[in-house]
Amino acid sequence: MSPAREAGGGGHPRGAPIHTAAVLGLGVVGGSLARDLASLGVRVLGLDADRGALDRAVDEGVVADAVGADLAELEEADAVVLAVPVDVARDLLPGVAAAAPRAALITDVGSTKGRMVASAEACGVGPRFVGGHPLAGDHRSGWSASRRGLFQGAVVYLCPAQGAASRALATAADLWRRVGASPMVMGAAEHDRTLAWISHLPQAASTAIALALAGGGHPRSALGPGGQDATRLAGSAPSMWAPVALENAAELAPALEALECVLAGLRAALGRQDRVEVERFFAEGRHWSGT
Amino acid sequence: MSPAREAGGGGHPRGAPIHTAAVLGLGVVGGSLARDLASLGVRVLGLDADRGALDRAVDEGVVADAVGADLAELEEADAVVLAVPVDVARDLLPGVAAAAPRAALITDVGSTKGRMVASAEACGVGPRFVGGHPLAGDHRSGWSASRRGLFQGAVVYLCPAQGAASRALATAADLWRRVGASPMVMGAAEHDRTLAWISHLPQAASTAIALALAGGGHPRSALGPGGQDATRLAGSAPSMWAPVALENAAELAPALEALECVLAGLRAALGRQDRVEVERFFAEGRHWSGT
Repeated sequence: MSPAREAGGGGHPRGAPIHTAAVLGLGVVGGSLARDLASLGVRVLGLDADRGALDRAVDEGVVADAVGADLAELEEADAVVLAVPVDVARDLLPGVAAAAPRAALITDVGSTKGRMVASAEACGVGPRFVGGHPLAGDHRSGWSASRRGLFQGAVVYLCPAQGAASRALATAADLWRRVGASPMVMGAAEHDRTLAWISHLPQAASTAIALALAGGGHPRSALGPGGQDATRLAGSAPSMWAPVALENAAELAPALEALECVLAGLRAALGRQDRVEVERFFAEGRHWSGT
Repeated sequence: MSPAREAGGGGHPRGAPIHTAAVLGLGVVGGSLARDLASLGVRVLGLDADRGALDRAVDEGVVADAVGADLAELEEADAVVLAVPVDVARDLLPGVAAAAPRAALITDVGSTKGRMVASAEACGVGPRFVGGHPLAGDHRSGWSASRRGLFQGAVVYLCPAQGAASRALATAADLWRRVGASPMVMGAAEHDRTLAWISHLPQAASTAIALALAGGGHPRSALGPGGQDATRLAGSAPSMWAPVALENAAELAPALEALECVLAGLRAALGRQDRVEVERFFAEGRHWSGT
């Protein structure tokens, strides 16, 4: 695992109090965060492109007030969380920066951090911007898949912008700790390099298995429980993952190539009926499973 | 999905009664079958290379009597189930054939069926041999991972040997139905072609992801819940899977190659930042997930 350090601890500045938080995007991650925050007594302002989802979030008492298209309600926010696909988050950021002058923290939940952090620095919110990436979620998507407790025990990577105030970092760490997660601080470039392997590769591989099976004419329903596990991530939202893969292409490509090499090596070993090599293949996989 | 038909039904011969069943190999599949059969009042004879596992199966009241190295106890068996790796099962078969003259059914639970069925025909037990393959199991292995109810709702492929008596097939179908499974009859060659895709490919791919991550220095503990799902099968027993992959190499190789092509296609699309193609990749994976 790559270098990362636990966020906060003794001697660090305290985070700003969060009485009102805006969650922009009420999908499985944003919706779950909104539910947790509301249950902790935080006033949640919400926005979602799906008006029906937003209405349900209000009806269920999770979202106290809807955020309008002009983002005017953000003026009251102590923290703003962008919980939309990474490309949409970048598009929203300048408007959010202008509309939320009081917010001690502007953050996001995207699976890539380099470009987002750079955008925050470029539009002048670097001192208040700490990128976030909870290693939690679900292959299902939308408000209906959101739930309380999603982040309990999950690692959340925090990637402060250049010049981010230590109070902004402490505020982000507090926010995630309150919903049960473990914040870890990591540079954005290091985050993207690491996550290409531990998150983006399994996602892309699971989808690739799905496409190979689809090409062979085999539906998911034909798979046993193990195969269903291996392909569960293939059900993830394309609107979330296509931008992540495109944005992190430079880091993901070598990981994909490594996987292709391993598969080609197995195929060659099978072709020559190399028992020693095939046994080593499965034995190394089992060994890694215990790591 | 490939052609298969439900086993049994109206007008088919009835299976032979099974008062005593021998289960050779008390791992997760054999052990679970032994537990279910014992709970149904069947007298179970058991054998396992791990003497401690066999002793526990006897102590727990699942196995009524241990089978000795000379297999003499098989004389009392109405059915014999080989639940050991496919290569070991083939080695055991001639001895079982000689030691179990009364058994109306000799069967196995291996993930490949072509060579096993051919071996059964070659050693003269074709009329009593129906290969079996329950699409159930676990990445964990051994008696300690076995449990009652493992086969509830699972598909079990039945591949009769050339010249197998219809009574042997009915006996096999009855056996699996009694433990809650759904038997489907399929030719051995067709089985191996189909399972290369729906079972052996996800297993090999999951292990390959593990090896790629191991090579990149990333332990399994760094993965989120989705990545853990995608690599769960990598923990499967090498002693079970190496012989399966080697035996079904001719069918598995094209499936592996298809997966390599899909991965290389994604990598190329990422290289040229082809948004349309990358979106199509994830969208097709999600579409397949609903199939």
